[in-house]
Amino acid sequence: MKTIKPKRSSSRVKVVSPQLPRGFKVSGLNCGIKKSKKDLGLIYSQVPAKAVGFFTSNRIQGAPLKLTQQHLKNKKAQAIVVNSGNANCLTAARGLKNAVQMARLTGKELGIDKEQVLVASTGIIGRELPMDKITRGIPLLVKGLKAGSLSSFVKAIMTTDRSSKIVCLKLKVGASGLTLTGIAKGAGMIAPNLATMLAFVVTDAEIDYQALRKAFQKAVANSFNLISVDGDMSTNDTAVILANGLAGNSKITSNNKYFSQFAAALDFVCLELSKMIVAGGEGATKVIKVCVCGAKSFEKAKRVALKVANSNLVKTAVNGGDPNWGRILAAAGAADADISENKLDLYLGHKLVLRKGILVNNNYSLLRRLCKKKEVEIKIDLNRGKAQACVFSCDLSQEYVRLNARYEPH
Amino acid sequence: MKTIKPKRSSSRVKVVSPQLPRGFKVSGLNCGIKKSKKDLGLIYSQVPAKAVGFFTSNRIQGAPLKLTQQHLKNKKAQAIVVNSGNANCLTAARGLKNAVQMARLTGKELGIDKEQVLVASTGIIGRELPMDKITRGIPLLVKGLKAGSLSSFVKAIMTTDRSSKIVCLKLKVGASGLTLTGIAKGAGMIAPNLATMLAFVVTDAEIDYQALRKAFQKAVANSFNLISVDGDMSTNDTAVILANGLAGNSKITSNNKYFSQFAAALDFVCLELSKMIVAGGEGATKVIKVCVCGAKSFEKAKRVALKVANSNLVKTAVNGGDPNWGRILAAAGAADADISENKLDLYLGHKLVLRKGILVNNNYSLLRRLCKKKEVEIKIDLNRGKAQACVFSCDLSQEYVRLNARYEPH
Repeated sequence: MKTIKPKRSSSRVKVVSPQLPRGFKVSGLNCGIKKSKKDLGLIYSQVPAKAVGFFTSNRIQGAPLKLTQQHLKNKKAQAIVVNSGNANCLTAARGLKNAVQMARLTGKELGIDKEQVLVASTGIIGRELPMDKITRGIPLLVKGLKAGSLSSFVKAIMTTDRSSKIVCLKLKVGASGLTLTGIAKGAGMIAPNLATMLAFVVTDAEIDYQALRKAFQKAVANSFNLISVDGDMSTNDTAVILANGLAGNSKITSNNKYFSQFAAALDFVCLELSKMIVAGGEGATKVIKVCVCGAKSFEKAKRVALKVANSNLVKTAVNGGDPNWGRILAAAGAADADISENKLDLYLGHKLVLRKGILVNNNYSLLRRLCKKKEVEIKIDLNRGKAQACVFSCDLSQEYVRLNARYEPH
Repeated sequence: MKTIKPKRSSSRVKVVSPQLPRGFKVSGLNCGIKKSKKDLGLIYSQVPAKAVGFFTSNRIQGAPLKLTQQHLKNKKAQAIVVNSGNANCLTAARGLKNAVQMARLTGKELGIDKEQVLVASTGIIGRELPMDKITRGIPLLVKGLKAGSLSSFVKAIMTTDRSSKIVCLKLKVGASGLTLTGIAKGAGMIAPNLATMLAFVVTDAEIDYQALRKAFQKAVANSFNLISVDGDMSTNDTAVILANGLAGNSKITSNNKYFSQFAAALDFVCLELSKMIVAGGEGATKVIKVCVCGAKSFEKAKRVALKVANSNLVKTAVNGGDPNWGRILAAAGAADADISENKLDLYLGHKLVLRKGILVNNNYSLLRRLCKKKEVEIKIDLNRGKAQACVFSCDLSQEYVRLNARYEPH
């Protein structure tokens, strides 16, 4: 299982090995949607948790998203049931019925109301869910909670992901220790907004609903909404946080001193998950970090950064380790923003390549080395204002094409 | 040399084998920008021709575009000098000087004013033109006009193009026959607006400047601006038409009966060139035609069609012959337009696949056959209005990645 290196090991925040916060249990199994890999997973909190979710802005949304948004109106939830291998999207009225059925069966087995159950699905679009298999799977899934490992849940939500994506933090809020655990799946169809297909964060923090919503909204905006694998926006992107309050900490509210601590920790979890999603993008061999500064607004900086990060020509150049600054600036120029060639500074890594649109570093072999790194950093200064945005993307490889040219249901 | 099948062989319009209109000469040679392939070409009209041009809307524009736009203010031109292998873009003040020098040298050798010479460049961005080589090449290029073949010019403007793109039409305007010859290069970095890197149309038509501008503007909007290879907008896209009037036809004006005839012929030339560009896209094995109808406006239809046509997931699915309707509608839904899942009809070829968002054709092997054709047709009816737009694109192959991951200067 992949974990991150502790970058913030101050006394208050610590990255720890994957574990669940108090009161959460998980399980995962194969119910037959996929041939043999796990395809059905469950997160359960022993007490109702405050719950907030954000969803794709695609006009076509999977059925589970419609149901989950409805259930989230109660501002709390106790379980999330997830299947992979089928997105239950473009499945008309039957799709919604099936999502409801998933919530109902899970609720019944857990002994809780179906409104307390959130549903998420990921996989192929436009096919009906095999409800017979899911119906048989759910009781076993609930039974599996007793001995369920985090790894079994994570595997159950994966599609073409090559590795699990988990980030776990411990932090101190007042005298109490609390845990934040983030789990995501990514791989393909990754573009804002949201940028991930599925991300779940669970925490035992005692936190006021408004504070939870505010912190999660900001964390999502600065992480999942700033990554892109292929510029294809998913129909099923879902990010949900559950906070069950069992840590017994002094309650976090939007106005007290604990909020910024909690929000920073949540930002960190979401950003690390985002980077893992990009690094694990379909066929990806490298991460591309594109920072645009000197823009007149954050939105303009973001637009330019995304245009560069999504350019197939930039992504293939990075794949080949080619420091093709022309393609980078051509992509930037194609973004509809205030760009003047004679104001542009371009950096690869920390090396200034163009200053005010003029090539100042023609050391091709040095630049080539920078583009052969596992993380390629591109920085563009528009010299127009003070706003900036950083976006994470990955390269475009022959393997991406091979994977996606033959994406059969299973 | 690739020619098109005559689709409009009415008595008035005929597709003919590649040839030049009266009074035009061309040449092409290798001057050393590329190792051995042709890289320098010239079009020359023995009399000044009316001239109109349209250019990329990228904020980063190659130096030749700036010069050519200036020269076109005279509304006439007599020559176009073109190099391939280097785009003379992101080359600062020196780039503009070099473009001016190309026009000056060509004018001097031809004995015409430098303002009569248009300049175009295509190739790698961000490198200085090797002016010593071009300076030595231009006199030979002018000498070559005597015996120059259309094919030598076409080869000189090619970069990664796999075949030449020429469309030649004869049409009768009143009692006179006139010729329209279109030449283009494409391959990569193809996205609106414009969609082609370079397209030149020469004609011996006698036509009023305003009429020429009007007809060409419409033809470009309906052809080069509706194709996409990789969604990467070039810095050097240039479409220029020269009309030298030597056919001696009754003058075409915006108001007389000849205009619509001429405009239709020009539309045809530009559309056929556009299709050739897409079919010859880098690594392309198939053409994708995406038509969106039932939209509230042409612009909305175009946005949805381009989103589908540019989706890497749709393009890879087509590459693999996979009828992945889910990806198609997910891409449509990501376009910022009025889309309702329960109003959408989707056709592959002429087969209705989804009606009002519900799958009505699950004959996978039939749909797979449709997606294995050389031209894959996708039609989406939004059922929201009466506007429509059709866009041409190509698939995304492993070969595209291979080509672009290793795009060295030569």
